[in-house]
Amino acid sequence: MSTPFRILGLDPGLRRTGWGVIESCDHHLRHIASGVVSPDNRLEMPARLNLLYEGITSLVDAWSPDEAAVEEIFVSKNPLSTLRLGQARGVVLLAPARASLTVYEYAANVIKKSVVGAGHADKSQMQAMVRMLLPTADPQSIDAADALAVAICHAHHTATQRAWQHQKATAG
Amino acid sequence: MSTPFRILGLDPGLRRTGWGVIESCDHHLRHIASGVVSPDNRLEMPARLNLLYEGITSLVDAWSPDEAAVEEIFVSKNPLSTLRLGQARGVVLLAPARASLTVYEYAANVIKKSVVGAGHADKSQMQAMVRMLLPTADPQSIDAADALAVAICHAHHTATQRAWQHQKATAG
Repeated sequence: MSTPFRILGLDPGLRRTGWGVIESCDHHLRHIASGVVSPDNRLEMPARLNLLYEGITSLVDAWSPDEAAVEEIFVSKNPLSTLRLGQARGVVLLAPARASLTVYEYAANVIKKSVVGAGHADKSQMQAMVRMLLPTADPQSIDAADALAVAICHAHHTATQRAWQHQKATAG
Repeated sequence: MSTPFRILGLDPGLRRTGWGVIESCDHHLRHIASGVVSPDNRLEMPARLNLLYEGITSLVDAWSPDEAAVEEIFVSKNPLSTLRLGQARGVVLLAPARASLTVYEYAANVIKKSVVGAGHADKSQMQAMVRMLLPTADPQSIDAADALAVAICHAHHTATQRAWQHQKATAG
């Protein structure tokens, strides 16, 4: 049996950043915890970003993930929304990096393909599949479910890479 | 004579973040230091953002500013550029906030109006005016000059606010 490893999945947003921690071991996935970080939106931007940073840092402290995976953001048609989302995303990438975690990024269609099997899956299909793969999860929000989907995607990619490395090592 | 206070001006960018520290006292401005933080662009995004964060944090440690002022970003026509700029800007707003500085934001036209006297001034007029207001500055890059301009803008706004407060206090 391999050593289990923990993944922190993050779905960045200024109002709500979804997060989910899962454990992956020998192709088995287990839900550890999930939720949402929502900084008070009445505060000024630097204070909101600071609360977001502290929220993610405290998750890393509490759940000790080995790696982090972040959803690549959808670029909005509204440039100001894209800028604000970018600001939140910068902080979401920074916080685990400063906690010495390697941070992986996955595009939305890669996540969908990895979780549902189709790059054009809709939100409800994604959520249903997250519940099926992590039966004890019951994420209360879409953002937390999306974050768990990123974590699942990273678990799948890592398992595939490990299998390749194992094959190369035994063939060598 | 009032107590001099130090302002850290920042012009955010992923490749180059300009910075400038000035001291303001009784309507007199003095250049303290300025330069550019440029994280290695061959690194992955989380590592680049981390270097940017560490760069700004070390400036705060080295120059002990009392307040920080950041230029509001121009929104590019390219959504991906806006997103990347947003990520850098999130980190640039976060770093001084985490060092317990209040961070002020100024739009480009407000900075131009404050420094040159016209909201539509061009880059060369801005740089000339920065050199005139801070004769010992000689900023080596446009980014550093822009950062000094944000700091000057904040100094002017703070002086005006202080004058109002003084007027109110003596009239009361």
